[in-house]
Amino acid sequence: MAKPLKVGIAGLGTVGAATIRILVGAHNELSARAGRSIEIVAVSARSKGKDRGVDLGAYRWYDDAAEMARDPGVELLVEVMGGSEGMAKAAIEAALALGKPVVTANKALLAAHGPALAALAERNNTTIAFEAAVAGGIPVIKALREALVGNKVTRVSGIMNGTCNYILSRMEAEGLDFAQCLKAAQELGYAEADPTFDVEGFDTAHKLALLTALAFGTEVDSDAVYVEGISGVTPLDLEMAEELGFRIKLLGVAERTAAGIEQRVHPTFVSRQSQLANVMGVTNAVAIEAEPVGTITLVGPGAGGGATASAVVGDIVDLARGNAVTTFGRPSQVLEKPIRAPMQRHEGGYYIRLQVLDRPGAAAIIASRMAERGISLESILQKGREARRNANGSVPVILITYATTELLIRNAVAAIAEDGVLDGTPQVIRIER
Amino acid sequence: MAKPLKVGIAGLGTVGAATIRILVGAHNELSARAGRSIEIVAVSARSKGKDRGVDLGAYRWYDDAAEMARDPGVELLVEVMGGSEGMAKAAIEAALALGKPVVTANKALLAAHGPALAALAERNNTTIAFEAAVAGGIPVIKALREALVGNKVTRVSGIMNGTCNYILSRMEAEGLDFAQCLKAAQELGYAEADPTFDVEGFDTAHKLALLTALAFGTEVDSDAVYVEGISGVTPLDLEMAEELGFRIKLLGVAERTAAGIEQRVHPTFVSRQSQLANVMGVTNAVAIEAEPVGTITLVGPGAGGGATASAVVGDIVDLARGNAVTTFGRPSQVLEKPIRAPMQRHEGGYYIRLQVLDRPGAAAIIASRMAERGISLESILQKGREARRNANGSVPVILITYATTELLIRNAVAAIAEDGVLDGTPQVIRIER
Repeated sequence: MAKPLKVGIAGLGTVGAATIRILVGAHNELSARAGRSIEIVAVSARSKGKDRGVDLGAYRWYDDAAEMARDPGVELLVEVMGGSEGMAKAAIEAALALGKPVVTANKALLAAHGPALAALAERNNTTIAFEAAVAGGIPVIKALREALVGNKVTRVSGIMNGTCNYILSRMEAEGLDFAQCLKAAQELGYAEADPTFDVEGFDTAHKLALLTALAFGTEVDSDAVYVEGISGVTPLDLEMAEELGFRIKLLGVAERTAAGIEQRVHPTFVSRQSQLANVMGVTNAVAIEAEPVGTITLVGPGAGGGATASAVVGDIVDLARGNAVTTFGRPSQVLEKPIRAPMQRHEGGYYIRLQVLDRPGAAAIIASRMAERGISLESILQKGREARRNANGSVPVILITYATTELLIRNAVAAIAEDGVLDGTPQVIRIER
Repeated sequence: MAKPLKVGIAGLGTVGAATIRILVGAHNELSARAGRSIEIVAVSARSKGKDRGVDLGAYRWYDDAAEMARDPGVELLVEVMGGSEGMAKAAIEAALALGKPVVTANKALLAAHGPALAALAERNNTTIAFEAAVAGGIPVIKALREALVGNKVTRVSGIMNGTCNYILSRMEAEGLDFAQCLKAAQELGYAEADPTFDVEGFDTAHKLALLTALAFGTEVDSDAVYVEGISGVTPLDLEMAEELGFRIKLLGVAERTAAGIEQRVHPTFVSRQSQLANVMGVTNAVAIEAEPVGTITLVGPGAGGGATASAVVGDIVDLARGNAVTTFGRPSQVLEKPIRAPMQRHEGGYYIRLQVLDRPGAAAIIASRMAERGISLESILQKGREARRNANGSVPVILITYATTELLIRNAVAAIAEDGVLDGTPQVIRIER
């Protein structure tokens, strides 16, 4: 058997502690599977005294994770501290500079600094493994970096934020509004006290940017992601979705289009027949469309100490066994600079909910604004007209369009708004085939 | 860059031809990803003259695949001929004996000879990769052998035969009977002229036996799989399933129970809320339940040249890159001899459809035979009594039981049959939580 692999773990939150529990508890099993012993030799965190439910007595303690990464006895760095700058970045850079592989769960850091860190890793003949950074315990990085190498990926789409999916699932099931469900999610520990990062789609955007790079062989370009969160989704939207055979999910979607690489995160109407529509609660899912394989959908827990630690340990054992895949699946020098497809050129169907004032000719105005731009309507819904009339005397009108472009939809909706037939802001939600 | 990897391909059917197309068409991309060039140097098949739509001119031809495996210029054998004995086995043994890794799609061969071949591979410091052998393009072997190593798997269940899932989906959607849908599947090329191997569950059993070994660290034990096919499923069963909130799927299930390792393949009532229930048509899916990760479900195409070749190429690139995982994920000497859990001890709920003669006391007899064995009934259905009465004057009665054992159910149903209140054979279908 090869010599042991000596591991240093930076970050002792739920993920770090769960990782230690697995590495210690399944030590013999993992050694048999890796072909060598995997030994924790050092740990680092902010506070030494805190009880984390795991015995740290046998490990060298570092207040400074970068110093731990430079410890000559540490051969592999596990970074589960989080944060896109500061200590996490310093520790990873220190390890890579010394040719030590890094296992990280840090999507924010990789979304911000992925290309530079990947290049640093390669210059030092090492790599970064980050299965835990996207969709927790779901092996989607492994699918894209390894299993599907024989394919040309055309599209990746997924539910990658459990907080949002929990809120939308609960809004749908109970007819509650966003604020009520967010509160419930916070009480259950599914949402942070400041939920912006999750509910406004930024977390999904980071994850999507990493998948895009792997899928298309491009440099990580997280600034190019169009982002829209779920705070504007209403119970009426969910009700209409159900009636029309859809569910609303916060999707991250990356695809190659004629205009370049499109990356977008937004609430989406997805067909109830699809795999993604049936992913409820905090569960995550990613669908990969590729040629010649077809569509592969991976579903599972996207967060939590155990699920994330499962991914971290998978990466550690891979590296112990010598399965060192280049960070983004291809050597940095062959990663393309992505051509950004502007959101205005996005093509697809749209759900439009207008609160329309009850005035002669309103319907004709709406229909003609659409027709002027060549937008075909698949259906117009105006159910329960009287019951839904609000204090201003306006009623909701739902339009479902056939495929058109974002630009035309925005123009049409703006023109309708200028016509003075609307009460309140129009709602526009993209439909995914 | 490392020296090229020289590959010999045995079998030039749809999978072999699709593999060649990928290796040739994506040669540069694959070289970049593998860190070395992957070159086909030799091929073997039964008939040299046949046009397969790929240019074989540059490769050495072998009529005998084993001879090709011994060609000193061949460093890796791809076996996509099929057959559990004969040429495929001889070729694989020849390659392994010389320390050459093997990539195969041959589930029948591995189900029959997996342990011996794995041991042969290890003695010669090489391995067998078989992603393509189970669920086609879905990376379920990689998930179990690599991604989930940090977990203790408790249960694996899946839809692993597209023919059966197509037939059941179509029976459900169109209310047709098994024979009609089998014929349609044959016409579409989804079922063989002799469909026994698929529709009676043997193909699923082979695949399940391989997943069981990977999941639980046990020797492949395909003889231990309890197998029941779908030919006895009727449109009435599908209708009742729908009414009760279920779908019927041919599942392969492996789990650790108190009685040992249970491996079974049979038509199953699965909740319509579950991921597996929403897998329709020829699509496959596998759900892995493990601690601490939770449940991971992988969905995708389970057959076809492109999907299978995708898996084959993934394995080739892995081996080219040096990611050589032990055949069954652990060294042969640590694989446990599985303790077989007898099917009689299976615990779960049951759907029982009885065709009951309209005679006084029939219902009381049925109820008491169940009660005598402590079997609790969750529901009794007798809908559309008159419309469903057949020529003998009997009507269908549906029982749904709470969890009980296979033994008690078989005894109870046998006792009811002896009581002379039944017309025809009872239908018993297991319910999966």
